[in-house]
Amino acid sequence: MRIAVDAMGGDNAPLEVVKGCMGALQREKKLELIVVGKKESIRDILGGYDTSRITIQNATEVIGGDEPPVEAIKKKKDSSMVVGMQKVKGGQADAFISAGNTGALLAGALLKIGRIKGIDRPALAPILPTEKGGAMLIDAGANAECKPSNLLQFGMMGSAYMKGVMGIENPRVALINIGTEEGKGNVLTKETYRLLEESGLKFIGNIEARGIPEGAADVLVCDGFVGNVILKLTEGLAMSLFAQLKKEFTQNTASKLAASVLRPGLRRFRGRLDYNQYGGAPLLGIAGGCIKAHGSSDALAIENAIMQAVRFIDNKVEQSITEHIKVGGK
Amino acid sequence: MRIAVDAMGGDNAPLEVVKGCMGALQREKKLELIVVGKKESIRDILGGYDTSRITIQNATEVIGGDEPPVEAIKKKKDSSMVVGMQKVKGGQADAFISAGNTGALLAGALLKIGRIKGIDRPALAPILPTEKGGAMLIDAGANAECKPSNLLQFGMMGSAYMKGVMGIENPRVALINIGTEEGKGNVLTKETYRLLEESGLKFIGNIEARGIPEGAADVLVCDGFVGNVILKLTEGLAMSLFAQLKKEFTQNTASKLAASVLRPGLRRFRGRLDYNQYGGAPLLGIAGGCIKAHGSSDALAIENAIMQAVRFIDNKVEQSITEHIKVGGK
Repeated sequence: MRIAVDAMGGDNAPLEVVKGCMGALQREKKLELIVVGKKESIRDILGGYDTSRITIQNATEVIGGDEPPVEAIKKKKDSSMVVGMQKVKGGQADAFISAGNTGALLAGALLKIGRIKGIDRPALAPILPTEKGGAMLIDAGANAECKPSNLLQFGMMGSAYMKGVMGIENPRVALINIGTEEGKGNVLTKETYRLLEESGLKFIGNIEARGIPEGAADVLVCDGFVGNVILKLTEGLAMSLFAQLKKEFTQNTASKLAASVLRPGLRRFRGRLDYNQYGGAPLLGIAGGCIKAHGSSDALAIENAIMQAVRFIDNKVEQSITEHIKVGGK
Repeated sequence: MRIAVDAMGGDNAPLEVVKGCMGALQREKKLELIVVGKKESIRDILGGYDTSRITIQNATEVIGGDEPPVEAIKKKKDSSMVVGMQKVKGGQADAFISAGNTGALLAGALLKIGRIKGIDRPALAPILPTEKGGAMLIDAGANAECKPSNLLQFGMMGSAYMKGVMGIENPRVALINIGTEEGKGNVLTKETYRLLEESGLKFIGNIEARGIPEGAADVLVCDGFVGNVILKLTEGLAMSLFAQLKKEFTQNTASKLAASVLRPGLRRFRGRLDYNQYGGAPLLGIAGGCIKAHGSSDALAIENAIMQAVRFIDNKVEQSITEHIKVGGK
C-alpha cells in the first residue's frame, strides 16, 4: 500500500509532517510513503532514518494557506499538493494526505483526481468528538449549496466510512434539523428526510444540534454551510470554555493548587475536545482516498491521519461507497 | 407601563412565573402586570401579596409544550397565551411574556398581534453568552427559509435592540458565514453581504461561527435554520462539557476535595454558560413587545424577562425599528 503525503502543508510543515511519516512507517509494516515537497528540506529532516519505504518526490512550489484555491491549483503545477494528487490519479499512490489549504485541497481533488462515478458532490467529513466517541459530520464545508440528492449521498458515504474505518457495524445516520419530528425544517431537509427514509441506511430521523455532543448519531448529515458552522462553533466554544476555566483556576494560590490536583482530569477533558485525536477529515466521494489533516497538525496528528488512510484502503471504503451508490440509486 | 405575563407557560408554571412577577414589581415601581391564566391557581400563589399593581386575567385553557403551534392558537381561544396576546393587540398591555410553547408563541404573535409595518418576517432573537458579555443571534428559528431582504431587516432590528435594551451605542453587526472574505458562502449570504454593506448599520462583515464565543460581534445575522443550529449546539455543548468536567472532578476523594476549593470559580463559569441570565429572547418585528422566556425559567429568569420588556418599552425599541425600516428601505 502506498500513500502520498504533502510534506509542505500546514503550520508545522515540513518538520512535523515528515516526523509523522516516520511514526506511521513504524506502526504499519506494509506501508510505503511518497513524501512530496522540497527535496532538500525533506532529506535534512529524514537524516539517517531508514528510508527504504520512503520515496521523496520533489516539488518546487508550495500553495499557501491564504491563496485562492482554484487559481492556486491551476497555476502552481509543481506544488506539493498538485504533484501529490497526481500520484493518486496516476495510480502510483492509493491515497493522498495534506494539512495544507483546505479549499485548494477540495478544488484540487475534484480537478486533479476526480469523483467516484455516481457521486455528484464529494464532501469534507471530519469526526466530531462526542461523549460516545466520535460522529462524522458530512458535509463540513465543501458544498455551501446542496440538493436533497447530495445529502442522501453524504449519508451513504458517511455510513460506509464509519463502518469501514471506525468499525461501527450499522452506523446510525441522522439528519441535522431544527426539530425532531418529520416535516420540520426547510425545503432541503424535508425532502432529504424522505430520501434518507427510503435509503436502506439505518436512518434514525432528524436530530437537533443539541444532540450532537452527547453522541446521538454516528453520521450527521447536513449541507456544507450548516456543517461548517457546526464544526467551527464546536472548535470555538471548546477553546473559549477552556480558556475561561483556566482563568478561574489560576485566580489565587489555593485555586492553583487545587487545579494542579485536577490536572490529569483536565488533561483528559481537553484531550476529548481535541479533534486531532481522530486524525484528519476524509474527503469522501473522491476516487482514491484523500484526507485533510488539521492545519495545526503535529507529528502525531499526521501519523494518525496516515493510519486512517491505511484503514480506509484496507477496508475498501471507496469500493463500498461505489456499491452503495449503485444499489441506493441516484 | 403594563405588561401581560403568561402564568401557565413553561416547565415551572404557574408557581415560578407568578413569583417572578412579584420580584419584578418590587424592582420596578412604575410597572403594572396583567397575569394571565387560571384564576384560582394564580390567587393561591399570590396569597397575601399586595396585589394593587397586579390584575389577574382569567384564561381557562393552556397550550401544552408539544401541541402543534398554529392549530393550538386557532383552537384554544381561551388559552393564557391567546388571551395574553389579545391584551397587547387591544392596547391594554405594552408587551407580552411567555415561557410556553415557542412555536405557538411565534404563530400567535403573527396571527393575534401582527407585524410592525414594513417588517416582512419577525425573528426570534436570543442573547448568546460570549466572553465580552452577550451577542444577539437573529434569527434563531422563527424562519427556516429566508431571503436576503429578511436578513437585512434582522440586522436592523438587532441593532436597534442592542442599542435600546443593552445600551451598546453602535452595535457591531456581522453576518454568519463560512469564511470571512466577501464573496464567501451561499447565494443567500453573498447577496445579504451586499445589502448589509449599504445599510448604514455598523456592518463588520462576515464572521465564522468560531468567532461567536469570543464576542466578535454584537448582532449575529443568519437565517433561522442556521441560527437554531447555533443556539442548540451552544446549549448542548455547554451542558455536555460541564457534565464531563463534573465526572472528572468526582473521580476520587482528592479530586473531590480539590474541586470543592474551585467551586466558586466553577459556579461563575457555569453562570456564564447559562443564557437565562440575559432574560428571554425577544420576538423582534412584532407590533408590541413579545418576549419568549426559556421553557425551564425559574422566578429569577421570569423577573429578568419582565425587566427586559421594561427596557424595551422605556427605550422605544419598536419605534426605533420602525424608523430604521423607513430610512433603510426595502
